[in-house]
Amino acid sequence: MSEIQFRSDMTVELVRASANDADVLYAARVSTQGEQTLEGALKSDAETDKRDKGLINYLMRDRHGSPFEHNSLTFYVQAPIFVFREFMRHRIASYNEESGRYRELQPVFYVPGPERKLIQVGKPGHYEFHDGSAEQTALVEQETMAVTRASYEAYQRMLEAGIAREVARIVLPLNIYSSMYVTMNSRSLMNFLSLRTSREGTHFPSYPQREIEMVAEKMEDFWAELMPLTYESFNANGRVAP
Amino acid sequence: MSEIQFRSDMTVELVRASANDADVLYAARVSTQGEQTLEGALKSDAETDKRDKGLINYLMRDRHGSPFEHNSLTFYVQAPIFVFREFMRHRIASYNEESGRYRELQPVFYVPGPERKLIQVGKPGHYEFHDGSAEQTALVEQETMAVTRASYEAYQRMLEAGIAREVARIVLPLNIYSSMYVTMNSRSLMNFLSLRTSREGTHFPSYPQREIEMVAEKMEDFWAELMPLTYESFNANGRVAP
Amino acid sequence: MSEIQFRSDMTVELVRASANDADVLYAARVSTQGEQTLEGALKSDAETDKRDKGLINYLMRDRHGSPFEHNSLTFYVQAPIFVFREFMRHRIASYNEESGRYRELQPVFYVPGPERKLIQVGKPGHYEFHDGSAEQTALVEQETMAVTRASYEAYQRMLEAGIAREVARIVLPLNIYSSMYVTMNSRSLMNFLSLRTSREGTHFPSYPQREIEMVAEKMEDFWAELMPLTYESFNANGRVAP
Amino acid sequence: MSEIQFRSDMTVELVRASANDADVLYAARVSTQGEQTLEGALKSDAETDKRDKGLINYLMRDRHGSPFEHNSLTFYVQAPIFVFREFMRHRIASYNEESGRYRELQPVFYVPGPERKLIQVGKPGHYEFHDGSAEQTALVEQETMAVTRASYEAYQRMLEAGIAREVARIVLPLNIYSSMYVTMNSRSLMNFLSLRTSREGTHFPSYPQREIEMVAEKMEDFWAELMPLTYESFNANGRVAP
Repeated sequence: MSEIQFRSDMTVELVRASANDADVLYAARVSTQGEQTLEGALKSDAETDKRDKGLINYLMRDRHGSPFEHNSLTFYVQAPIFVFREFMRHRIASYNEESGRYRELQPVFYVPGPERKLIQVGKPGHYEFHDGSAEQTALVEQETMAVTRASYEAYQRMLEAGIAREVARIVLPLNIYSSMYVTMNSRSLMNFLSLRTSREGTHFPSYPQREIEMVAEKMEDFWAELMPLTYESFNANGRVAP
Repeated sequence: MSEIQFRSDMTVELVRASANDADVLYAARVSTQGEQTLEGALKSDAETDKRDKGLINYLMRDRHGSPFEHNSLTFYVQAPIFVFREFMRHRIASYNEESGRYRELQPVFYVPGPERKLIQVGKPGHYEFHDGSAEQTALVEQETMAVTRASYEAYQRMLEAGIAREVARIVLPLNIYSSMYVTMNSRSLMNFLSLRTSREGTHFPSYPQREIEMVAEKMEDFWAELMPLTYESFNANGRVAP
Repeated sequence: MSEIQFRSDMTVELVRASANDADVLYAARVSTQGEQTLEGALKSDAETDKRDKGLINYLMRDRHGSPFEHNSLTFYVQAPIFVFREFMRHRIASYNEESGRYRELQPVFYVPGPERKLIQVGKPGHYEFHDGSAEQTALVEQETMAVTRASYEAYQRMLEAGIAREVARIVLPLNIYSSMYVTMNSRSLMNFLSLRTSREGTHFPSYPQREIEMVAEKMEDFWAELMPLTYESFNANGRVAP
Repeated sequence: MSEIQFRSDMTVELVRASANDADVLYAARVSTQGEQTLEGALKSDAETDKRDKGLINYLMRDRHGSPFEHNSLTFYVQAPIFVFREFMRHRIASYNEESGRYRELQPVFYVPGPERKLIQVGKPGHYEFHDGSAEQTALVEQETMAVTRASYEAYQRMLEAGIAREVARIVLPLNIYSSMYVTMNSRSLMNFLSLRTSREGTHFPSYPQREIEMVAEKMEDFWAELMPLTYESFNANGRVAP
């Protein structure tokens, strides 16, 4: 049996991307100007830069969302199952996740790190979070580790006794890590970020669970580099998806 | 703390449905005949019955799927989280699930019943399942119950110590029951059934996990009563969604 | 050959609906309270009314959109093809349209009515419309009627000469009426209305073509009666879909 | 006024693509094998080639569709509006089309070429097409050209009289060319091809209008080069989308 591993972080890698601001501009200009060269859409000087920023801002503000769909970002994500449960509620995306029916799951589990705020106050849907006491922090670590170990040992004993993987896995806890391939376009990604991050300047309040927000922030960083004009405009317009 | 409850069955209730064969016929005839009365589509005698069956069969066989979308079935489902994880991969559907962030989860857990085949043989993707020995059956029951109890007690101790529900729940195992509202149209439901049941006569092989198949079979029974002509044609055409 | 008919209005009928505020509440409470009775969700007194309005308003404002999806409205629409072209860009909906391949199209054509503002001023995407002069109004009527007649006569001559319907129809103009069945849930309908109407109080500017707005307004009227609390909250929150 | 131009062909350009067989394999193996290197998925020798073909074939045959979604193809298409009307019924795709509200439409029109079969025989939904006589061919050309010219001249007169573009355009016929950007993943593209082509070896009969098939065939050619293993397997499995 492999050694149990505990982690407090999330893995997000950009596997493949075909995403840039020029395609947004080009798609928008097909609507308004008909034929033009892609070279034209891509050429860059002070004046076109200003016009391009203006166009992207107009699309974002007035909710012309379709020009932001002609692109694609594929991420490889490792996160606990309770994060994947929330993630996969987003339907405008493509998923392939590691299967506990086809393979033996590895003993990698999430335990909250020291910076994770453990105490919630306020009303449902609008919780605020505060640090736990040293005692509370220790309790969470102990309980999580103990349950995790006991569950994984039970899983192992069932596998060794010849029980099917899809049956044995039902005792594993929600903090076990899984991995997936996920592909989205930038419009769907903006919707995901608007709901799964709570960054400054968002137009409507969003109260994501911290662990999915950790994943979302890493995805956001990759995307911000690929589509800087779109990213800037998203932030300037209240982080609402067009 | 509530008493821990173990179950081996699934709950499926039909909450609301607006679904019948006449709407399929009416929608299809808008394409081919333009205006007609709904009364016409609904009237029933021997000759129209035969023509109606023929039209539905033609739509199913030649993959004219859209007439099967003008309807809606809403189910209330109680099932373990490992079932919901597979269920929610179906994106042409609407979901509202009980939230472990907003409320304390109840101690209801799945344990495989005596008829659950526990042993898998064959290649990945094409497993066959066989009964376990008495010893294996007992092992699964013992391990599942023991892990379940220990996990739920840890969950309770964390809640009592003031830890946020969304943190404490991460130790709960995949066999805890959750509940949801799910709405689908009959075309999406046929796709769901084609992938999540393994009934006789299916055109391509399907190897669903037994527990989601238990849910799917109950959904199928409700649907079969509401849309008998469509259901018959689905079965007669290899249980492939149009 | 049938007599050519000119119309300036749109037909919208509600064919079938399973849509009410109680299901929104019930779906939302599955998330937050787990099991409850549908009777409970449906019972009505002064206090529950206030609580119900508050919950729907909270869902709308904070963009919890999924509880608004467990319902279904099916409309029968007659409108010119240039309206259907815009309509069918809405992808979260189900469509069956009359087919010019399967049947001979009827000679019913749209001509702008006297209240249609014919002159646009301002920048692309933010046009304002003004009344045309008597001369302009007459020109539009004459040109439209003349082209329409000539096109339909050409269509007829080709059909009479044995040309396939799918070929002959290519000369028909965009103002010919078509008919369709369309099914949406209330969340998708709110998105449609936010983009295809320009009513007072909308949070972001919307500049729909008047003819699709005429269809949208009729759909809105049916929906407002079925889901009055949801409708009120939609208006109170800037007519933005949650 | 520009000179009227008649065309009998379709334009399809591949603007941008991120699509290859290796990503299908990699996504599928995340499910079954968990972590592996992308380099591993991409390396090529006789043995891995055989294994790769086998895996793609297994996915296609048993309808494991999701691994075919982690890619993206963006096409620029010029075709008549009656083709775009059918095209945009495909909802798992992203569109930006030239707008007749924002710009003056150019006088480019479709007229059937000499190889277009003009006569249909057989039952609705299963038409067969035959060549027209010389007389019929001449009639279609004459009628189409005459209507087209008259319509475009009426459009021009209305624009010159100050009528809004969105109003004037309603007299234009369905054979006017438009242009669009369309983005799909390969799974959605396979569904499109299965319904919009009638090539040899298709499992269920498909009777597309020839003009959309001309567009589909050009898209197919681009895709076949990018993903040769997937393409071969699609053909070997009856040209049904997984």
